[in-house]
Amino acid sequence: MLTAEERARVEVVLVRARNPNNIGAVARAMHDFGFARMAIVSDYLVPFEAARSAVDAADVLAGAMTNASVAEAVRACTLVLGTTAVGERAVEHPVLTLKDAAERIGEHVKGNAGHRVALLFGSEKTGLSNAEMSHCHALVTIPMERYTGVRHPSMNLGQAVAVCLYEMVRERSLERVVTDPARATAEEMERLRGLLVEVLEASGYTRRHPANSEETQVRRLLLRGVPTAADAPVWTGVLRQVLWALRRAKRERSDGGDSGFTGDA
Amino acid sequence: MLTAEERARVEVVLVRARNPNNIGAVARAMHDFGFARMAIVSDYLVPFEAARSAVDAADVLAGAMTNASVAEAVRACTLVLGTTAVGERAVEHPVLTLKDAAERIGEHVKGNAGHRVALLFGSEKTGLSNAEMSHCHALVTIPMERYTGVRHPSMNLGQAVAVCLYEMVRERSLERVVTDPARATAEEMERLRGLLVEVLEASGYTRRHPANSEETQVRRLLLRGVPTAADAPVWTGVLRQVLWALRRAKRERSDGGDSGFTGDA
Repeated sequence: MLTAEERARVEVVLVRARNPNNIGAVARAMHDFGFARMAIVSDYLVPFEAARSAVDAADVLAGAMTNASVAEAVRACTLVLGTTAVGERAVEHPVLTLKDAAERIGEHVKGNAGHRVALLFGSEKTGLSNAEMSHCHALVTIPMERYTGVRHPSMNLGQAVAVCLYEMVRERSLERVVTDPARATAEEMERLRGLLVEVLEASGYTRRHPANSEETQVRRLLLRGVPTAADAPVWTGVLRQVLWALRRAKRERSDGGDSGFTGDA
Repeated sequence: MLTAEERARVEVVLVRARNPNNIGAVARAMHDFGFARMAIVSDYLVPFEAARSAVDAADVLAGAMTNASVAEAVRACTLVLGTTAVGERAVEHPVLTLKDAAERIGEHVKGNAGHRVALLFGSEKTGLSNAEMSHCHALVTIPMERYTGVRHPSMNLGQAVAVCLYEMVRERSLERVVTDPARATAEEMERLRGLLVEVLEASGYTRRHPANSEETQVRRLLLRGVPTAADAPVWTGVLRQVLWALRRAKRERSDGGDSGFTGDA
Protein backbone atom coordinates (compact mmCIF):
# COMPACT_ATOMS: atom_id res chain seq x y z
CA MET A 1 0.00 0.00 0.00
CA LEU A 2 1.03 3.57 -0.61
CA THR A 3 2.41 5.71 2.18
CA ALA A 4 1.08 9.21 2.80
CA GLU A 5 4.05 10.62 0.94
CA GLU A 6 3.39 8.35 -2.03
CA ARG A 7 -0.33 9.15 -2.04
CA ALA A 8 0.61 12.81 -2.40
CA ARG A 9 2.12 11.88 -5.78
CA VAL A 10 -1.20 10.64 -7.14
CA GLU A 11 -3.71 13.00 -8.70
CA VAL A 12 -7.36 12.27 -9.39
CA VAL A 13 -8.46 14.04 -12.58
CA LEU A 14 -12.18 14.42 -13.29
CA VAL A 15 -12.72 15.14 -16.96
CA ARG A 16 -15.95 17.02 -17.71
CA ALA A 17 -17.61 16.01 -14.45
CA ARG A 18 -20.78 18.08 -14.33
CA ASN A 19 -22.68 17.04 -11.25
CA PRO A 20 -21.50 18.86 -8.10
CA ASN A 21 -22.81 16.00 -5.97
CA ASN A 22 -20.53 13.60 -7.80
CA ILE A 23 -17.55 15.92 -7.39
CA GLY A 24 -18.36 16.12 -3.69
CA ALA A 25 -18.62 12.32 -3.48
CA VAL A 26 -15.22 11.95 -5.17
CA ALA A 27 -13.68 14.46 -2.75
CA ARG A 28 -15.09 12.51 0.16
CA ALA A 29 -13.69 9.21 -1.12
CA MET A 30 -10.31 10.90 -1.59
CA HIS A 31 -10.42 12.23 1.94
CA ASP A 32 -11.37 8.80 3.30
CA PHE A 33 -8.35 7.14 1.71
CA GLY A 34 -5.90 9.97 2.35
CA PHE A 35 -5.53 11.43 -1.16
CA ALA A 36 -5.47 15.20 -1.55
CA ARG A 37 -4.70 16.13 -5.16
CA MET A 38 -7.80 16.65 -7.27
CA ALA A 39 -7.96 18.29 -10.68
CA ILE A 40 -11.01 19.03 -12.77
CA VAL A 41 -10.91 19.48 -16.52
CA SER A 42 -13.74 21.74 -17.55
CA ASP A 43 -14.33 24.52 -20.01
CA TYR A 44 -16.68 26.30 -17.66
CA LEU A 45 -16.53 27.32 -14.03
CA VAL A 46 -17.31 24.32 -11.86
CA PRO A 47 -19.94 25.08 -9.22
CA PHE A 48 -17.77 24.08 -6.32
CA GLU A 49 -20.09 25.63 -3.77
CA ALA A 50 -22.59 22.81 -4.04
CA ALA A 51 -19.83 20.21 -3.84
CA ARG A 52 -18.23 21.87 -0.84
CA SER A 53 -21.04 20.59 1.35
CA ALA A 54 -19.53 17.11 1.01
CA VAL A 55 -18.82 15.76 4.46
CA ASP A 56 -15.17 15.83 5.49
CA ALA A 57 -13.98 16.76 2.04
CA ALA A 58 -13.46 20.49 2.42
CA ASP A 59 -9.68 20.24 2.31
CA VAL A 60 -9.65 18.22 -0.90
CA LEU A 61 -12.07 20.61 -2.61
CA ALA A 62 -10.23 23.70 -1.41
CA GLY A 63 -7.09 22.45 -3.12
CA ALA A 64 -8.77 21.28 -6.34
CA MET A 65 -7.47 22.82 -9.55
CA THR A 66 -9.60 23.56 -12.58
CA ASN A 67 -7.86 23.10 -15.92
CA ALA A 68 -8.98 23.89 -19.43
CA SER A 69 -7.59 20.67 -20.93
CA VAL A 70 -6.38 17.20 -20.08
CA ALA A 71 -2.92 18.20 -21.33
CA GLU A 72 -2.80 21.02 -18.79
CA ALA A 73 -4.09 18.86 -15.93
CA VAL A 74 -1.52 16.10 -16.45
CA ARG A 75 1.44 18.23 -17.57
CA ALA A 76 3.63 17.40 -14.57
CA CYS A 77 2.69 13.71 -14.47
CA THR A 78 4.97 10.86 -15.49
CA LEU A 79 2.33 8.12 -15.62
CA VAL A 80 -1.17 8.84 -16.89
CA LEU A 81 -3.88 6.18 -16.57
CA GLY A 82 -7.44 6.47 -17.82
CA THR A 83 -10.36 4.55 -16.37
CA THR A 84 -12.79 2.85 -18.72
CA ALA A 85 -15.64 0.38 -18.72
CA VAL A 86 -13.83 -1.04 -21.77
CA GLY A 87 -15.28 -0.96 -25.21
CA GLU A 88 -14.03 -1.25 -28.72
CA ARG A 89 -11.82 1.78 -28.18
CA ALA A 90 -9.62 -0.07 -25.75
CA VAL A 91 -7.66 -1.80 -28.51
CA GLU A 92 -5.51 1.31 -28.89
CA HIS A 93 -4.07 0.96 -25.38
CA PRO A 94 -2.88 -1.66 -22.97
CA VAL A 95 -5.77 -2.37 -20.57
CA LEU A 96 -4.95 -3.28 -16.98
CA THR A 97 -7.21 -4.64 -14.31
CA LEU A 98 -7.45 -2.29 -11.34
CA LYS A 99 -5.34 -4.67 -9.30
CA ASP A 100 -2.48 -4.62 -11.80
CA ALA A 101 -2.83 -0.87 -12.33
CA ALA A 102 -2.52 -0.27 -8.59
CA GLU A 103 0.64 -2.36 -8.57
CA ARG A 104 2.07 -0.38 -11.44
CA ILE A 105 1.19 2.90 -9.73
CA GLY A 106 2.81 1.65 -6.54
CA GLU A 107 6.02 0.73 -8.32
CA HIS A 108 6.03 4.01 -10.20
CA VAL A 109 5.72 6.28 -7.17
CA LYS A 110 7.92 4.18 -4.89
CA GLY A 111 10.81 4.12 -7.32
CA ASN A 112 11.25 7.83 -7.77
CA ALA A 113 10.25 10.85 -5.70
CA GLY A 114 9.89 12.96 -8.86
CA HIS A 115 7.23 10.70 -10.33
CA ARG A 116 3.62 11.86 -10.47
CA VAL A 117 0.62 9.75 -11.43
CA ALA A 118 -2.67 11.00 -12.89
CA LEU A 119 -5.76 8.80 -12.76
CA LEU A 120 -8.40 10.09 -15.18
CA PHE A 121 -12.14 9.60 -14.83
CA GLY A 122 -14.41 10.59 -17.71
CA SER A 123 -17.76 12.30 -17.60
CA GLU A 124 -20.68 10.46 -16.00
CA LYS A 125 -22.43 9.99 -19.32
CA THR A 126 -19.76 9.28 -21.89
CA GLY A 127 -16.55 8.35 -20.10
CA LEU A 128 -13.27 9.47 -21.64
CA SER A 129 -13.19 10.40 -25.32
CA ASN A 130 -10.61 9.02 -27.72
CA ALA A 131 -8.72 12.30 -27.67
CA GLU A 132 -8.71 12.30 -23.86
CA MET A 133 -7.53 8.68 -23.76
CA SER A 134 -4.67 9.53 -26.10
CA HIS A 135 -2.95 11.27 -23.16
CA CYS A 136 -2.85 7.96 -21.26
CA HIS A 137 -0.04 5.44 -21.09
CA ALA A 138 -2.57 2.72 -20.32
CA LEU A 139 -6.21 2.19 -19.39
CA VAL A 140 -7.60 0.72 -16.20
CA THR A 141 -10.78 -1.24 -15.90
CA ILE A 142 -12.83 -2.88 -13.21
CA PRO A 143 -14.08 -5.88 -15.17
CA MET A 144 -17.74 -5.49 -14.21
CA GLU A 145 -18.88 -7.13 -17.39
CA ARG A 146 -17.89 -10.42 -15.86
CA TYR A 147 -20.24 -9.95 -12.94
CA THR A 148 -23.18 -8.30 -14.61
CA GLY A 149 -23.13 -9.76 -18.09
CA VAL A 150 -23.97 -6.22 -19.25
CA ARG A 151 -22.01 -5.32 -22.36
CA HIS A 152 -21.18 -1.69 -21.53
CA PRO A 153 -21.49 -1.34 -17.80
CA SER A 154 -20.84 1.94 -16.06
CA MET A 155 -20.22 2.80 -12.45
CA ASN A 156 -21.29 5.73 -10.33
CA LEU A 157 -18.38 8.21 -10.33
CA GLY A 158 -17.97 8.48 -6.56
CA GLN A 159 -18.09 4.70 -6.17
CA ALA A 160 -15.61 4.15 -9.00
CA VAL A 161 -13.11 6.55 -7.41
CA ALA A 162 -13.63 4.97 -3.98
CA VAL A 163 -12.91 1.49 -5.34
CA CYS A 164 -9.81 2.64 -7.25
CA LEU A 165 -8.33 4.47 -4.28
CA TYR A 166 -9.15 1.58 -1.96
CA GLU A 167 -7.15 -0.74 -4.20
CA MET A 168 -4.17 1.61 -3.92
CA VAL A 169 -4.13 1.68 -0.13
CA ARG A 170 -5.13 -1.94 0.34
CA GLU A 171 -2.62 -3.95 2.34
CA ARG A 172 -0.41 -6.11 0.17
CA SER A 173 1.32 -9.29 1.10
CA LEU A 174 4.71 -8.10 -0.04
CA GLU A 175 5.97 -4.56 -0.14
CA ARG A 176 7.84 -4.33 -3.38
CA VAL A 177 10.43 -1.68 -3.89
CA VAL A 178 11.35 -1.37 -7.51
CA THR A 179 13.51 1.40 -8.84
CA ASP A 180 12.30 2.67 -12.12
CA PRO A 181 14.09 5.16 -14.37
CA ALA A 182 12.61 8.64 -14.21
CA ARG A 183 9.87 9.13 -16.79
CA ALA A 184 9.30 12.12 -19.02
CA THR A 185 6.49 14.40 -17.88
CA ALA A 186 3.35 14.83 -19.96
CA GLU A 187 4.46 18.39 -20.72
CA GLU A 188 7.79 17.18 -22.13
CA MET A 189 5.93 14.60 -24.19
CA GLU A 190 3.62 17.26 -25.62
CA ARG A 191 6.65 19.32 -26.67
CA LEU A 192 8.12 16.23 -28.30
CA ARG A 193 4.84 15.62 -30.09
CA GLY A 194 4.81 19.18 -31.43
CA LEU A 195 8.30 18.69 -32.78
CA LEU A 196 7.46 15.35 -34.35
CA VAL A 197 4.42 16.91 -36.03
CA GLU A 198 6.72 19.53 -37.57
CA VAL A 199 9.07 16.81 -38.83
CA LEU A 200 6.14 14.87 -40.28
CA GLU A 201 4.99 17.97 -42.11
CA ALA A 202 8.42 19.09 -43.28
CA SER A 203 9.23 15.64 -44.65
CA GLY A 204 5.94 15.26 -46.50
CA TYR A 205 4.76 12.41 -44.26
CA THR A 206 1.57 14.21 -43.16
CA ARG A 207 0.43 14.60 -46.74
CA ARG A 208 0.99 10.94 -47.58
CA HIS A 209 -0.40 9.48 -44.34
CA PRO A 210 -2.94 11.96 -42.97
CA ALA A 211 -4.64 9.33 -40.77
CA ASN A 212 -1.36 8.47 -39.02
CA SER A 213 -0.62 12.14 -38.52
CA GLU A 214 -3.70 13.14 -36.55
CA GLU A 215 -3.02 14.68 -33.15
CA THR A 216 -4.40 11.80 -31.11
CA GLN A 217 -2.59 9.21 -33.26
CA VAL A 218 0.77 10.91 -32.86
CA ARG A 219 0.26 11.33 -29.12
CA ARG A 220 -0.57 7.66 -28.69
CA LEU A 221 2.41 6.66 -30.82
CA LEU A 222 4.72 8.58 -28.51
CA LEU A 223 3.09 7.55 -25.23
CA ARG A 224 3.19 3.88 -26.07
CA GLY A 225 6.92 4.44 -26.29
CA VAL A 226 7.01 5.94 -22.76
CA PRO A 227 10.48 7.45 -22.98
CA THR A 228 12.43 8.05 -19.82
CA ALA A 229 13.26 11.52 -18.61
CA ALA A 230 16.77 11.03 -19.96
CA ASP A 231 15.57 9.91 -23.40
CA ALA A 232 13.20 12.78 -24.04
CA PRO A 233 15.98 15.36 -24.60
CA VAL A 234 17.83 12.94 -26.89
CA TRP A 235 14.74 12.50 -29.04
CA THR A 236 14.20 16.23 -28.97
CA GLY A 237 17.76 16.76 -30.20
CA VAL A 238 17.31 14.21 -32.98
CA LEU A 239 14.06 15.77 -34.17
CA ARG A 240 15.46 19.31 -34.05
CA GLN A 241 18.43 18.30 -36.14
CA VAL A 242 16.25 16.51 -38.66
CA LEU A 243 13.93 19.50 -38.85
CA TRP A 244 16.83 21.85 -39.34
CA ALA A 245 18.22 19.68 -42.15
CA LEU A 246 14.82 19.40 -43.84
CA ARG A 247 14.20 23.14 -43.66
CA ARG A 248 17.64 24.07 -44.88
CA ALA A 249 17.02 21.77 -47.83
CA LYS A 250 13.75 23.51 -48.57
CA ARG A 251 15.28 26.98 -48.37
CA GLU A 252 18.05 25.95 -50.73
CA ARG A 253 15.80 24.39 -53.30
CA SER A 254 15.13 26.85 -56.06
CA ASP A 255 12.43 24.83 -57.75
CA GLY A 256 10.15 24.91 -54.69
CA GLY A 257 8.61 21.78 -56.20
CA ASP A 258 6.64 18.86 -54.89
CA SER A 259 8.23 17.10 -51.91
CA GLY A 260 6.03 14.05 -52.31
CA PHE A 261 7.60 10.66 -51.81
CA THR A 262 7.07 8.87 -55.10
CA GLY A 263 9.10 5.76 -54.46
CA ASP A 264 6.17 3.46 -53.69
CA ALA A 265 3.10 5.68 -54.07
CA MET B 1 -13.11 -14.15 -6.41
CA LEU B 2 -16.67 -15.34 -5.93
CA THR B 3 -18.55 -16.98 -8.75
CA ALA B 4 -22.09 -15.89 -9.66
CA GLU B 5 -23.47 -18.82 -7.69
CA GLU B 6 -21.42 -17.86 -4.64
CA ARG B 7 -22.39 -14.20 -4.90
CA ALA B 8 -26.02 -15.31 -4.72
CA ARG B 9 -25.23 -16.59 -1.21
CA VAL B 10 -24.21 -13.14 0.02
CA GLU B 11 -26.78 -10.67 1.30
CA VAL B 12 -26.27 -6.94 1.83
CA VAL B 13 -28.28 -5.74 4.84
CA LEU B 14 -28.90 -2.02 5.31
CA VAL B 15 -29.85 -1.30 8.89
CA ARG B 16 -31.95 1.84 9.33
CA ALA B 17 -30.82 3.37 6.04
CA ARG B 18 -33.04 6.42 5.64
CA ASN B 19 -31.92 8.21 2.50
CA PRO B 20 -33.50 6.78 -0.67
CA ASN B 21 -30.56 8.09 -2.70
CA ASN B 22 -28.19 6.05 -0.60
CA ILE B 23 -30.33 2.96 -0.97
CA GLY B 24 -30.33 3.52 -4.72
CA ALA B 25 -26.54 3.95 -4.72
CA VAL B 26 -26.13 0.68 -2.80
CA ALA B 27 -28.40 -1.11 -5.28
CA ARG B 28 -26.35 0.22 -8.15
CA ALA B 29 -23.07 -0.94 -6.60
CA MET B 30 -24.62 -4.37 -6.03
CA HIS B 31 -25.73 -4.52 -9.63
CA ASP B 32 -22.27 -3.48 -10.84
CA PHE B 33 -20.56 -6.31 -9.00
CA GLY B 34 -23.22 -8.91 -9.63
CA PHE B 35 -24.88 -9.19 -6.20
CA ALA B 36 -28.66 -9.41 -6.04
CA ARG B 37 -29.77 -10.02 -2.45
CA MET B 38 -30.56 -6.84 -0.56
CA ALA B 39 -32.39 -6.58 2.73
CA ILE B 40 -33.42 -3.46 4.59
CA VAL B 41 -34.08 -3.36 8.30
CA SER B 42 -36.55 -0.64 9.07
CA ASP B 43 -39.47 -0.08 11.34
CA TYR B 44 -41.24 2.05 8.78
CA LEU B 45 -42.05 1.65 5.11
CA VAL B 46 -38.97 2.51 3.07
CA PRO B 47 -39.75 4.93 0.23
CA PHE B 48 -38.43 2.65 -2.48
CA GLU B 49 -39.98 4.72 -5.25
CA ALA B 50 -37.29 7.38 -5.03
CA ALA B 51 -34.53 4.78 -4.93
CA ARG B 52 -35.91 2.91 -7.90
CA SER B 53 -34.65 5.61 -10.20
CA ALA B 54 -31.12 4.33 -9.54
CA VAL B 55 -29.46 3.51 -12.83
CA ASP B 56 -29.35 -0.19 -13.67
CA ALA B 57 -30.41 -1.22 -10.20
CA ALA B 58 -34.09 -1.95 -10.77
CA ASP B 59 -33.66 -5.71 -10.42
CA VAL B 60 -31.85 -5.45 -7.11
CA LEU B 61 -34.45 -3.08 -5.69
CA ALA B 62 -37.36 -5.14 -6.96
CA GLY B 63 -36.06 -8.11 -5.00
CA ALA B 64 -35.19 -6.20 -1.81
CA MET B 65 -36.84 -7.39 1.39
CA THR B 66 -37.87 -5.12 4.21
CA ASN B 67 -37.51 -6.62 7.66
CA ALA B 68 -38.54 -5.31 11.04
CA SER B 69 -35.34 -6.44 12.80
CA VAL B 70 -31.75 -7.54 12.22
CA ALA B 71 -32.66 -10.95 13.62
CA GLU B 72 -35.31 -11.37 10.96
CA ALA B 73 -33.06 -10.14 8.13
CA VAL B 74 -30.21 -12.52 8.94
CA ARG B 75 -32.25 -15.52 10.05
CA ALA B 76 -31.16 -17.79 7.15
CA CYS B 77 -27.50 -16.74 7.28
CA THR B 78 -24.62 -18.84 8.56
CA LEU B 79 -22.04 -16.05 8.79
CA VAL B 80 -22.97 -12.51 9.84
CA LEU B 81 -20.45 -9.70 9.54
CA GLY B 82 -21.03 -6.10 10.56
CA THR B 83 -19.15 -3.17 9.05
CA THR B 84 -17.73 -0.53 11.32
CA ALA B 85 -15.39 2.44 11.30
CA VAL B 86 -14.08 0.89 14.55
CA GLY B 87 -14.53 2.52 17.91
CA GLU B 88 -14.45 1.50 21.51
CA ARG B 89 -17.32 -0.87 20.88
CA ALA B 90 -15.15 -3.03 18.66
CA VAL B 91 -13.50 -4.74 21.61
CA GLU B 92 -16.54 -6.96 21.92
CA HIS B 93 -15.85 -8.62 18.57
CA PRO B 94 -13.04 -9.84 16.42
CA VAL B 95 -12.31 -7.10 13.90
CA LEU B 96 -11.13 -8.11 10.42
CA THR B 97 -9.71 -5.94 7.72
CA LEU B 98 -11.89 -5.99 4.63
CA LYS B 99 -9.28 -8.09 2.85
CA ASP B 100 -9.35 -10.79 5.52
CA ALA B 101 -13.13 -10.62 5.77
CA ALA B 102 -13.48 -11.18 2.02
CA GLU B 103 -11.25 -14.22 2.30
CA ARG B 104 -13.33 -15.60 5.13
CA ILE B 105 -16.54 -14.98 3.17
CA GLY B 106 -15.02 -16.71 0.16
CA GLU B 107 -14.06 -19.78 2.18
CA HIS B 108 -17.45 -19.85 3.83
CA VAL B 109 -19.58 -19.81 0.70
CA LYS B 110 -17.25 -22.03 -1.32
CA GLY B 111 -17.23 -24.73 1.32
CA ASN B 112 -20.94 -25.36 1.48
CA ALA B 113 -23.83 -24.64 -0.86
CA GLY B 114 -26.14 -24.20 2.12
CA HIS B 115 -24.06 -21.39 3.60
CA ARG B 116 -25.38 -17.84 3.54
CA VAL B 117 -23.49 -14.67 4.46
CA ALA B 118 -24.97 -11.37 5.65
CA LEU B 119 -22.94 -8.18 5.48
CA LEU B 120 -24.50 -5.47 7.66
CA PHE B 121 -24.17 -1.73 7.12
CA GLY B 122 -25.44 0.66 9.79
CA SER B 123 -27.31 3.92 9.38
CA GLU B 124 -25.52 6.84 7.74
CA LYS B 125 -25.35 8.79 10.98
CA THR B 126 -24.66 6.32 13.73
CA GLY B 127 -23.46 3.07 12.19
CA LEU B 128 -24.51 -0.18 13.84
CA SER B 129 -25.67 -0.10 17.46
CA ASN B 130 -24.30 -2.45 20.08
CA ALA B 131 -27.49 -4.50 19.89
CA GLU B 132 -27.24 -4.75 16.13
CA MET B 133 -23.58 -5.76 16.30
CA SER B 134 -24.44 -8.50 18.72
CA HIS B 135 -25.88 -10.47 15.80
CA CYS B 136 -22.48 -10.53 14.13
CA HIS B 137 -19.81 -13.22 14.23
CA ALA B 138 -17.19 -10.59 13.53
CA LEU B 139 -16.78 -6.99 12.45
CA VAL B 140 -15.21 -5.73 9.26
CA THR B 141 -13.38 -2.47 8.87
CA ILE B 142 -11.69 -0.52 6.16
CA PRO B 143 -8.84 0.96 8.17
CA MET B 144 -9.36 4.54 7.02
CA GLU B 145 -7.99 5.91 10.25
CA ARG B 146 -4.54 4.98 8.96
CA TYR B 147 -4.94 7.16 5.91
CA THR B 148 -6.81 10.10 7.31
CA GLY B 149 -5.57 10.30 10.87
CA VAL B 150 -9.21 11.02 11.79
CA ARG B 151 -10.25 9.18 14.92
CA HIS B 152 -13.78 8.20 13.91
CA PRO B 153 -13.91 8.31 10.14
CA SER B 154 -17.03 7.39 8.27
CA MET B 155 -17.65 6.54 4.65
CA ASN B 156 -20.49 7.32 2.33
CA LEU B 157 -22.84 4.31 2.38
CA GLY B 158 -22.85 3.67 -1.37
CA GLN B 159 -19.07 3.95 -1.55
CA ALA B 160 -18.57 1.67 1.45
CA VAL B 161 -20.75 -1.02 -0.12
CA ALA B 162 -18.99 -0.62 -3.48
CA VAL B 163 -15.58 -1.08 -1.88
CA CYS B 164 -16.69 -4.12 0.14
CA LEU B 165 -18.26 -5.86 -2.83
CA TYR B 166 -15.29 -5.01 -5.02
CA GLU B 167 -13.01 -6.77 -2.55
CA MET B 168 -15.18 -9.88 -2.80
CA VAL B 169 -15.05 -10.08 -6.58
CA ARG B 170 -11.50 -8.81 -6.93
CA GLU B 171 -9.25 -11.07 -8.94
CA ARG B 172 -6.82 -12.97 -6.81
CA SER B 173 -3.25 -13.54 -7.81
CA LEU B 174 -3.85 -15.80 -10.79
CA GLU B 175 -6.89 -14.50 -12.55
CA ARG B 176 -5.47 -11.53 -14.40
CA VAL B 177 -7.02 -10.41 -17.61
CA VAL B 178 -4.74 -7.89 -19.16
CA THR B 179 -4.71 -7.09 -22.81
CA ASP B 180 -1.38 -5.76 -23.81
CA PRO B 181 -0.68 -4.93 -27.42
CA ALA B 182 1.74 -7.26 -29.19
CA ARG B 183 5.32 -6.04 -28.95
CA ALA B 184 7.66 -5.60 -31.87
CA THR B 185 10.17 -8.42 -32.33
CA ALA B 186 13.88 -7.88 -31.81
CA GLU B 187 14.33 -8.29 -35.54
CA GLU B 188 11.87 -5.50 -36.31
CA MET B 189 13.61 -3.36 -33.72
CA GLU B 190 17.01 -3.92 -35.33
CA ARG B 191 15.63 -2.90 -38.73
CA LEU B 192 14.18 0.21 -37.13
CA ARG B 193 17.53 0.94 -35.52
CA GLY B 194 19.33 0.63 -38.87
CA LEU B 195 16.94 3.11 -40.38
CA LEU B 196 17.30 5.52 -37.50
CA VAL B 197 21.09 5.37 -37.82
CA GLU B 198 20.75 6.36 -41.47
CA VAL B 199 18.54 9.31 -40.51
CA LEU B 200 20.98 10.39 -37.82
CA GLU B 201 23.77 10.36 -40.36
CA ALA B 202 21.84 12.03 -43.17
CA SER B 203 20.68 14.83 -40.90
CA GLY B 204 24.12 15.52 -39.48
CA TYR B 205 23.16 14.36 -35.97
CA THR B 206 25.88 11.68 -35.80
CA ARG B 207 28.61 14.18 -36.41
CA ARG B 208 27.34 16.56 -33.73
CA HIS B 209 26.53 13.92 -31.11
CA PRO B 210 28.79 10.94 -31.74
CA ALA B 211 28.30 9.54 -28.21
CA ASN B 212 24.51 9.47 -28.58
CA SER B 213 24.85 7.80 -31.97
CA GLU B 214 26.77 4.70 -30.95
CA GLU B 215 25.08 1.42 -31.82
CA THR B 216 24.35 0.36 -28.25
CA GLN B 217 23.06 3.82 -27.35
CA VAL B 218 20.66 3.89 -30.26
CA ARG B 219 19.46 0.36 -29.54
CA ARG B 220 18.79 1.16 -25.90
CA LEU B 221 17.01 4.36 -26.89
CA LEU B 222 14.65 2.36 -29.09
CA LEU B 223 14.18 -0.55 -26.72
CA ARG B 224 13.29 1.68 -23.80
CA GLY B 225 10.51 2.89 -26.04
CA VAL B 226 9.33 -0.71 -26.64
CA PRO B 227 7.01 0.06 -29.52
CA THR B 228 4.13 -2.27 -30.20
CA ALA B 229 4.05 -4.50 -33.25
CA ALA B 230 1.57 -2.08 -34.80
CA ASP B 231 3.76 0.97 -34.10
CA ALA B 232 6.98 -0.37 -35.61
CA PRO B 233 5.78 -0.06 -39.25
CA VAL B 234 4.50 3.46 -38.54
CA TRP B 235 7.91 4.52 -37.23
CA THR B 236 9.54 2.78 -40.16
CA GLY B 237 7.34 4.76 -42.55
CA VAL B 238 8.16 8.02 -40.77
CA LEU B 239 11.91 7.38 -40.90
CA ARG B 240 11.85 6.31 -44.56
CA GLN B 241 10.03 9.46 -45.54
CA VAL B 242 12.43 11.63 -43.54
CA LEU B 243 15.39 9.85 -45.07
CA TRP B 244 14.00 10.26 -48.55
CA ALA B 245 13.44 13.99 -47.97
CA LEU B 246 16.94 14.43 -46.55
CA ARG B 247 18.61 12.56 -49.42
CA ARG B 248 16.67 14.31 -52.13
CA ALA B 249 17.83 17.57 -50.59
CA LYS B 250 21.41 16.39 -50.69
CA ARG B 251 21.19 15.27 -54.32
CA GLU B 252 19.68 18.59 -55.28
CA ARG B 253 22.27 20.67 -53.51
CA SER B 254 24.92 21.75 -55.91
CA ASP B 255 27.33 23.14 -53.34
CA GLY B 256 27.77 19.73 -51.65
CA GLY B 257 28.77 21.79 -48.64
CA ASP B 258 28.83 21.23 -44.95
CA SER B 259 25.56 19.96 -43.49
CA GLY B 260 26.55 20.83 -39.93
CA PHE B 261 23.97 22.38 -37.68
CA THR B 262 25.48 25.72 -36.71
CA GLY B 263 22.61 27.11 -34.70
CA ASP B 264 24.09 26.37 -31.29
CA ALA B 265 27.38 24.66 -32.09
